[in-house]
Amino acid sequence: MLGIVTTDMVIGVAEAGGLGSLPASALDAEQTRSIVGEIRRRTPKPLNLNFLCHEAPTRDRRREEAWLQRLTRYYRELGLTTEQSASGPPIPVFGSAHCDLLEEISPEVVSFHFGLPPKHLLERVRRTGAKIVSSATIVEEALWLEDSGCDAIIAQGFEAGGHRGTFLHRDPTRQVGLMALVPQIVDAVRVPVIAAGGIADPRGVAAAFALGASGVQVGTAFLFCEEANVSPLYREAARSTPPEQTVITNIFTGRPARVCDTRVVRELGPIGIDMPEFPVPAVPLAPLRAASEGQGRTDFTPLWCGQSARLGRALSAAALTRWLLDGQAEPSFGTIGDLRRKS
Amino acid sequence: MLGIVTTDMVIGVAEAGGLGSLPASALDAEQTRSIVGEIRRRTPKPLNLNFLCHEAPTRDRRREEAWLQRLTRYYRELGLTTEQSASGPPIPVFGSAHCDLLEEISPEVVSFHFGLPPKHLLERVRRTGAKIVSSATIVEEALWLEDSGCDAIIAQGFEAGGHRGTFLHRDPTRQVGLMALVPQIVDAVRVPVIAAGGIADPRGVAAAFALGASGVQVGTAFLFCEEANVSPLYREAARSTPPEQTVITNIFTGRPARVCDTRVVRELGPIGIDMPEFPVPAVPLAPLRAASEGQGRTDFTPLWCGQSARLGRALSAAALTRWLLDGQAEPSFGTIGDLRRKS
Repeated sequence: MLGIVTTDMVIGVAEAGGLGSLPASALDAEQTRSIVGEIRRRTPKPLNLNFLCHEAPTRDRRREEAWLQRLTRYYRELGLTTEQSASGPPIPVFGSAHCDLLEEISPEVVSFHFGLPPKHLLERVRRTGAKIVSSATIVEEALWLEDSGCDAIIAQGFEAGGHRGTFLHRDPTRQVGLMALVPQIVDAVRVPVIAAGGIADPRGVAAAFALGASGVQVGTAFLFCEEANVSPLYREAARSTPPEQTVITNIFTGRPARVCDTRVVRELGPIGIDMPEFPVPAVPLAPLRAASEGQGRTDFTPLWCGQSARLGRALSAAALTRWLLDGQAEPSFGTIGDLRRKS
Repeated sequence: MLGIVTTDMVIGVAEAGGLGSLPASALDAEQTRSIVGEIRRRTPKPLNLNFLCHEAPTRDRRREEAWLQRLTRYYRELGLTTEQSASGPPIPVFGSAHCDLLEEISPEVVSFHFGLPPKHLLERVRRTGAKIVSSATIVEEALWLEDSGCDAIIAQGFEAGGHRGTFLHRDPTRQVGLMALVPQIVDAVRVPVIAAGGIADPRGVAAAFALGASGVQVGTAFLFCEEANVSPLYREAARSTPPEQTVITNIFTGRPARVCDTRVVRELGPIGIDMPEFPVPAVPLAPLRAASEGQGRTDFTPLWCGQSARLGRALSAAALTRWLLDGQAEPSFGTIGDLRRKS
């Protein structure tokens, strides 16, 4: 939940008994040092740093120009010129500088998405003493992660919001629902399995444990926390989008991710062919997004969202965590999505 | 599970404490009378008859010819002529003759798939005293079924094998995973919710109840029962297909259904455009299927299969039902799919 998770959220979750997780891929060393410093001052609880571990994109001028071409009419519509499009990819590749930083700050858990970094880097992370975790969307990926030495595996179901952790295949039609995925991964590996996708209330937590999971990872439900860095437009979209109107698209970054349906997904997606590699497609979308949001619209905004958003509740990160953990004392007010009929 | 469920399966399930369900759409009155007679003689337990309730297809010569055209090369390859293609749709529409029969045999439960039959027919079914059940794949469908008087609603998740029960939309990309679907339907309706899709062992049953379901419907796991009318080819495909290799396709009947990936799906699907209406596409596929199966292949066979097939176990229908119900005494032999690593 890069860009969404705040320092207060991490601390709230950690203090309430969850594992606070900070997406650190887009932070530079100074930012990470500063945020982790504050977290360490305010809570003694374990900390999880999360990194995307994509490879450096192979730049492909033809694909990038074709992508920009497809966006030209939107630039025109918003009165922008394509020269305003920034040039570098927005998310740095996990590298040795990250390892230096991890050696310095020693987070208790380091989690990756999109597989694992190259062996020599992973070995450095391991030597910091951190537990290493990554996501699998199929059994084959779980076996690969276990063989690579992961201490726990996140089973990421079809329902999950945001990027699919997929790394052994790229076919967005090959998805497995969490109900089927968790027990099959649990049966296949010996390390603990953490269920992710569609879990937004204590019922989902209990169900995941019944399936054999040893933990759960919850994302979308935290969009409604007061501490989340989420615009009112985004929060309203997540609140009001029924699960079947979320869609897996590669339009925003080149990698499949579940979002609330929005204009650019409908018009260019959901699955664009011949897209530049992750995360290059995001670069020329950024000016469109900014201009559109300035007009109160989300036409070009990646509204990352899982299929259980409407089960969410407007609680603080700590209260949400406690509620998910103890499963008791359901708040007396209804769900975010107003699912319940008045009788 | 039309064509797969046998009299012995229905009786085995019922005697073990489940609700035995007989797919009756493709049976004529005499066949139904005879099978139900045998079931009634052999068990006093409640019986569920299941019907597809599609509308009569609007015949469209252009679409049907285009579909046959797409199949021509397969006819040629198998040494068949398209004149060998039968003409009528293989599954009759639910009508007043079915109501006559239901009045005569009084099943305790009548379930429908694809919504509900027209009101005057549904009213006749209701007057037989049967409980009425149908499937929802989104919250909106569940609300519609409740408003139409259903006594219980099956929440059919993305993971489920066979036909999607979808009836308020036809967009195969609009799917909801069971983990997200069940609690959202439970919150929306007042009638009991039955979870379906990806449930194949006691863990899935426990998870569904944790999500708020009042019951579960299990399909794919019964493919491995000795009493099932399943060819060795089909059983082997279900056993060996990982969940991400099952696919939702409309190629076999015109309606989206989850199957094991097979040749005709790969070459013409998974989603064919401008298909004839359900179930017309099945008609010209039938001779291809027969010829291909005669050569030991499943190129044209709809291998209906959910995403938890590999959790299956080769048990009798009664033993499988008891295992699902009590969740104890896991059979000492492993899963059908050999997921577990040897340590």
